[in-house]
Amino acid sequence: MRLLFDQFMKKCEDGSWTLLPSFNYKLIYRDQDVSTLMNAYFPTASELGNKEKLSQAQLFGTNFKDGLGFEYVMFYNDVEQRIVCVFQGGPHLQGMPGFLHGGAIATMIDITLGMSAIIAGEIVMTANLNINFKRPISLRSVVLINSQLDKIEGRKLFFSSNIQSIDEKILYTEATVLAVCRNDGRKKQEEDHE
Amino acid sequence: MRLLFDQFMKKCEDGSWTLLPSFNYKLIYRDQDVSTLMNAYFPTASELGNKEKLSQAQLFGTNFKDGLGFEYVMFYNDVEQRIVCVFQGGPHLQGMPGFLHGGAIATMIDITLGMSAIIAGEIVMTANLNINFKRPISLRSVVLINSQLDKIEGRKLFFSSNIQSIDEKILYTEATVLAVCRNDGRKKQEEDHE
Repeated sequence: MRLLFDQFMKKCEDGSWTLLPSFNYKLIYRDQDVSTLMNAYFPTASELGNKEKLSQAQLFGTNFKDGLGFEYVMFYNDVEQRIVCVFQGGPHLQGMPGFLHGGAIATMIDITLGMSAIIAGEIVMTANLNINFKRPISLRSVVLINSQLDKIEGRKLFFSSNIQSIDEKILYTEATVLAVCRNDGRKKQEEDHE
Repeated sequence: MRLLFDQFMKKCEDGSWTLLPSFNYKLIYRDQDVSTLMNAYFPTASELGNKEKLSQAQLFGTNFKDGLGFEYVMFYNDVEQRIVCVFQGGPHLQGMPGFLHGGAIATMIDITLGMSAIIAGEIVMTANLNINFKRPISLRSVVLINSQLDKIEGRKLFFSSNIQSIDEKILYTEATVLAVCRNDGRKKQEEDHE
């Protein structure tokens, strides 16, 4: 995993790839943004949700001790609008004995997606997640999660994602994700490029 | 949640519904069964997986303190081949502030499915998981997960699943799941009914 990390860090030197910060919405999402989004789409839900913001709330996937849960680092290529996530699933993510739980894989795909959205400067909500599990992934094995923004149609963002072995010879999982953002995604992109 | 539990327990009295044990594959899967399945389909993966069986492996979703993670109880209706899961997601399953993480929802759907398979006496592997997230689910709210076996084609089992509010007025999530089992599912069913 360390070797892969170094390889990608090398790629970052010329600016084509960027190391992304660990997922932490508190650093990235402003509370106000989230409230605005939730109020716009789900006024009743938002009210309920606000009540729960306080107290013991904690981001799903972060309650594992080091090495036991979701261990990952993400890199972003701006030109290709592509993320590569180097992921190692710890022994507390078990489904079938010795292998990652399907839910843990789905979670990791969703997390990678969330990061793509954050890069696009948008708060998105996953509307559809369609995953093909092709081969089981062993606990503690290091794999690559590739996530690519394929197209934008109005407020809809279409992503494709796959999980491969580090030599890219084994395809473990394929997925497509449809996410919905607050603003017109295409308009946002054009503005950025002006 | 307690009230719903009592209502379903009442339904169990005439034998139409059954309370299911908490998901624990150690009680249900025999190690030998799992090895046979894994060896048959994924000989290399199986080898890798076996190495990880020991040590610190723990079922994903079970590492939360009471009330903070996945709280649920499942009931099964044999005639309708349907499971109802009463589920309350704790504050450590957060995605957007105040709401459940999409990965946690996917995990819960996969767990319910796994239980359907265990009832059918089969070890199945999820091959496809297709989830439409329609509305966000507040942390700590009690919801119903309905899971239904729709059809069997050879080794393929087709399930549909949804997540509703307890009054069934709000549809939070819809999903379809394709699972693959070791034996011909239809044959198995016929044998059971002979």
